[in-house]
Amino acid sequence: MINRLRRYIPVLDWGRTYDRRAFSNDMIAAVIVTIMLIPQSLAYALLAGLPPEAGIYASIAPIILYAIFGTSRALAVGPVAVVSLLTASAIGQIAEQGTAGYAVAALTLAFLSGGFLVLMGVFRLGFLANFLSHPVIAGFITASGLLIATSQLKHILGVTAQGHTLPEMVFSIVRHLSETNWITLVIGVTSTGFLFWVRKNLRPTLKTLGTPALLADILTKAGPVAAVVATTVAVWLFGLADGGVKIVGEVPQSLPPLTMPGLSPDLISALLMPAILISIIGFVESVSVAQTLAAKKRQRINPDQELIGLGAANLGAAFTGGYPVTGGFARSVVNFDAGAETPAAGAYTAIGLAIAAVALTPLVYYLPNATLAATIIVAVLSLVDLSILRKTWGYSRADFSAVAATIVLTLGLGVEVGVAAGVALSVMLHLYKTSRPHVAEVGLVPGSQHFRNIHRHEVETDPSLVTLRVDESLYFVNARFLEDLVQKRVTDGCDVRNVVLMCSAVNAVDYSALESLEAINQRLKDMDIGLHLSEVKGPVMDRLKRSHFIEEMNGRVFLSQYDAWRALAPCPSSKLSE
Amino acid sequence: MINRLRRYIPVLDWGRTYDRRAFSNDMIAAVIVTIMLIPQSLAYALLAGLPPEAGIYASIAPIILYAIFGTSRALAVGPVAVVSLLTASAIGQIAEQGTAGYAVAALTLAFLSGGFLVLMGVFRLGFLANFLSHPVIAGFITASGLLIATSQLKHILGVTAQGHTLPEMVFSIVRHLSETNWITLVIGVTSTGFLFWVRKNLRPTLKTLGTPALLADILTKAGPVAAVVATTVAVWLFGLADGGVKIVGEVPQSLPPLTMPGLSPDLISALLMPAILISIIGFVESVSVAQTLAAKKRQRINPDQELIGLGAANLGAAFTGGYPVTGGFARSVVNFDAGAETPAAGAYTAIGLAIAAVALTPLVYYLPNATLAATIIVAVLSLVDLSILRKTWGYSRADFSAVAATIVLTLGLGVEVGVAAGVALSVMLHLYKTSRPHVAEVGLVPGSQHFRNIHRHEVETDPSLVTLRVDESLYFVNARFLEDLVQKRVTDGCDVRNVVLMCSAVNAVDYSALESLEAINQRLKDMDIGLHLSEVKGPVMDRLKRSHFIEEMNGRVFLSQYDAWRALAPCPSSKLSE
Repeated sequence: MINRLRRYIPVLDWGRTYDRRAFSNDMIAAVIVTIMLIPQSLAYALLAGLPPEAGIYASIAPIILYAIFGTSRALAVGPVAVVSLLTASAIGQIAEQGTAGYAVAALTLAFLSGGFLVLMGVFRLGFLANFLSHPVIAGFITASGLLIATSQLKHILGVTAQGHTLPEMVFSIVRHLSETNWITLVIGVTSTGFLFWVRKNLRPTLKTLGTPALLADILTKAGPVAAVVATTVAVWLFGLADGGVKIVGEVPQSLPPLTMPGLSPDLISALLMPAILISIIGFVESVSVAQTLAAKKRQRINPDQELIGLGAANLGAAFTGGYPVTGGFARSVVNFDAGAETPAAGAYTAIGLAIAAVALTPLVYYLPNATLAATIIVAVLSLVDLSILRKTWGYSRADFSAVAATIVLTLGLGVEVGVAAGVALSVMLHLYKTSRPHVAEVGLVPGSQHFRNIHRHEVETDPSLVTLRVDESLYFVNARFLEDLVQKRVTDGCDVRNVVLMCSAVNAVDYSALESLEAINQRLKDMDIGLHLSEVKGPVMDRLKRSHFIEEMNGRVFLSQYDAWRALAPCPSSKLSE
Repeated sequence: MINRLRRYIPVLDWGRTYDRRAFSNDMIAAVIVTIMLIPQSLAYALLAGLPPEAGIYASIAPIILYAIFGTSRALAVGPVAVVSLLTASAIGQIAEQGTAGYAVAALTLAFLSGGFLVLMGVFRLGFLANFLSHPVIAGFITASGLLIATSQLKHILGVTAQGHTLPEMVFSIVRHLSETNWITLVIGVTSTGFLFWVRKNLRPTLKTLGTPALLADILTKAGPVAAVVATTVAVWLFGLADGGVKIVGEVPQSLPPLTMPGLSPDLISALLMPAILISIIGFVESVSVAQTLAAKKRQRINPDQELIGLGAANLGAAFTGGYPVTGGFARSVVNFDAGAETPAAGAYTAIGLAIAAVALTPLVYYLPNATLAATIIVAVLSLVDLSILRKTWGYSRADFSAVAATIVLTLGLGVEVGVAAGVALSVMLHLYKTSRPHVAEVGLVPGSQHFRNIHRHEVETDPSLVTLRVDESLYFVNARFLEDLVQKRVTDGCDVRNVVLMCSAVNAVDYSALESLEAINQRLKDMDIGLHLSEVKGPVMDRLKRSHFIEEMNGRVFLSQYDAWRALAPCPSSKLSE
């Protein structure tokens, strides 16, 4: 019973052995992550089209719930760039930004996403995430990074612009270019340049100056905070808001409120598909991070329990004024590097953010949106990695097509279409590849019991015996291919008397393939040709025995191909092909 | 050049050697098929919701065009039951039966379907048909047969009823049951009973009476003609049409007219998906028949050329007042059994039907619809084969689910949803199965070089060495599974120092799996564990060499698993597991 509870509530497991050393390590990590998260939470809320406090609220309850239900020791959940973009794209289609309906829809999205994740976890459907191939994910993340960076240009320029696809955004920005607010532009460009410099050069510079590593780390992570403070002070001091610089403005000074997601059937049916998409993308992103970090300490995460942890976090977000969350790459790595030992580190981060929500929010009144946009741009451009195109091109054209299609369609038609097309395309390409499996006609290597491709090796063959080695499982997509192939081979050579299918690489035979084998058997029987199998694997043979195929076969099943050769080749003639 | 032309126009091939014997055989087959087709064409037009002459027109030009472009020597194209049902379902959504728009939409459907088939043929996309698994096809055909039979009940009862799904049809018929026309019912039931009797008992009865086989055959095939003649005469003689019996009525006495399919963008976009569905289903049905018949004579058909042949036939139907056609099972078998030697037999059938269209149409004025419905019911009930449920249940639950879902959804939600869900489900089930491949941990069979499952055999193992044999190609759907598996195995056993992946059944490694292998390698390296591969196939090794994986691997690639064992197992201890 307790063990069963422990499976669902991992905190019962690690909580028992929690000690002082773990506490102090977790605390240090929490301080660093909190400093990093304050500006990031505000910025991602902006990206999602929500009021800034939503970003902070989305980082508090979800972190605590994940600490209770999640299995990763280092994963930090909260708002992340890609999910914020998906949120904006999903809600943008049904409500105006800034309206109450928009915020309620965000809660509903988090609620549906949380419910879906929990259901997937309970029914152990984590494997569904595998339908997203790595190239599709890589292409999608890269394209999302580009989309997000582009979407922030309007804040840097201080103009209003719309659109959820790259062409829409670019056209909209260009149309409004004349309205550029020059003070905003200066703030935005300076902040972006400063943040890039911090990210690239601060740590090495501090190192040459002899700063201790931990301090250098904290200072680097505090870069966005410095930008926030500097630009906020500048706006306040010089009254730049009167000059048209858009600022964050009033942020309520409160702990996360209790909120109720909208549950009208219309809203649910409009947001269900986006919620599923967000869940799966968020889960994939989160689980890869968690797995990588766990491996470094020889720990293991449980993907199905991760679903429950992330689901609980999203349900938490739905009822505390947040929006969809997931495990973020940057924050988790920072958490891990800073020495977090248990999920308690996340809980301390939540406390830090709660204090910020109550005490610090008045201080960001004059914070310019351009600074937040700069932190987003700098963060997401690290997601953009076009090298995946080169890598997949070199490795496999099919994978390359999947990446390229995902990138082009995500940029050109939006995130939902892009990822759906990527998934569909990679499934189609996989099925296409297995629909034309590699099949070798084999002969005996003289003086051995090995059989090799007659077109590659000097082997013995017999004109009356055709042996085909099929290098693929037989299932509906390639069943007819096999029929065609056998038919072609035996109608090409008139003196064929026996056909052997060598099944050493056949891992499964589904019902379609069984019917194809039956059809092949029947057709060969009509032509007075025998059909034989060799080297059939145990599980495949077990299954074939459930049908009448083996009894009705116009031939035999040989344990080894050599047995088949000895039984069926009356007058082998050595043959040298090409 | 000539050879290339011959590839696209097979008539140039068989036409050269056409002789008197072939002519007389083809002629006999044509007479038998024509007798069978006259009532069938009228009936299928009724099923498609079109005027009766459309069925005859759809049998003339298409047959001739298929004779020129098709590769099967015995296939007979024309209206068939399932495609007629699909036509009614597709057009019924956009036009009222009996209107001019309905007939034009049928032409458009044939035109789009023909165009799509020709394109598929030119681009050699015949493999797309393979996405329909045998269980899905079997389930779909069975459900269609039930739907068609049910749809004809209204003609037998003489009531008006609507609906494209089984519940709709049944409710509609029940609601109108009180309007039953008793004379119609008598005609319908008698005809149905008579036709069943002819199909089952006439040939054996004639045989015991000593009738020659050919004559018995012709008489059996003429059963529907007899029913048509008898009921037509009865209606005319007793003036039953005045008693409310619905009759065929005026049929224009003419050769197929030149017609123009409607090509408005609205119509095209509404009919494109149904046209694709009809094309693929028609192609699958046609090509299975053609392949089966070709095999009986050691002939071969070319599936990509078949697409062009069927495409030409449908384009012909579109411009001569027909509707979508394909190669029919019943008529093709009759054609083949009657001794047709070349596609010319089809051309003679077309001439026979053209004569019928010009000369015989006035004779069917008093033909009751109930008789046509009876011929349809008797024809389609032979399509219904619920044994596929039992067969797949015994063989594989995944295949059973695909059949069951296809049948239930086709009956309950209509043909398009049924077949689409069937295809999606079989793809999902296949991906699911391969997402959890069979993986065996193997050890050395003492005194041999063979490696077997440690849980099934008494084998030698070494505590520091884990060897996993993966019985499936590695690709995106199972890439993460492998990561989890390796991670679980090495965190379970603390003294593991080397992991070998035995790849004898791995036929491919896609980019996602490559990245998973890289991640596994990196994680094992972090734990100071070596990762090795053994028995990698040539094509897989070629591909892996295109990446940096082999160089970066924290271990080696062994040609055989025995080599790996000798190199990596320092202190093997014999082990007996369960």
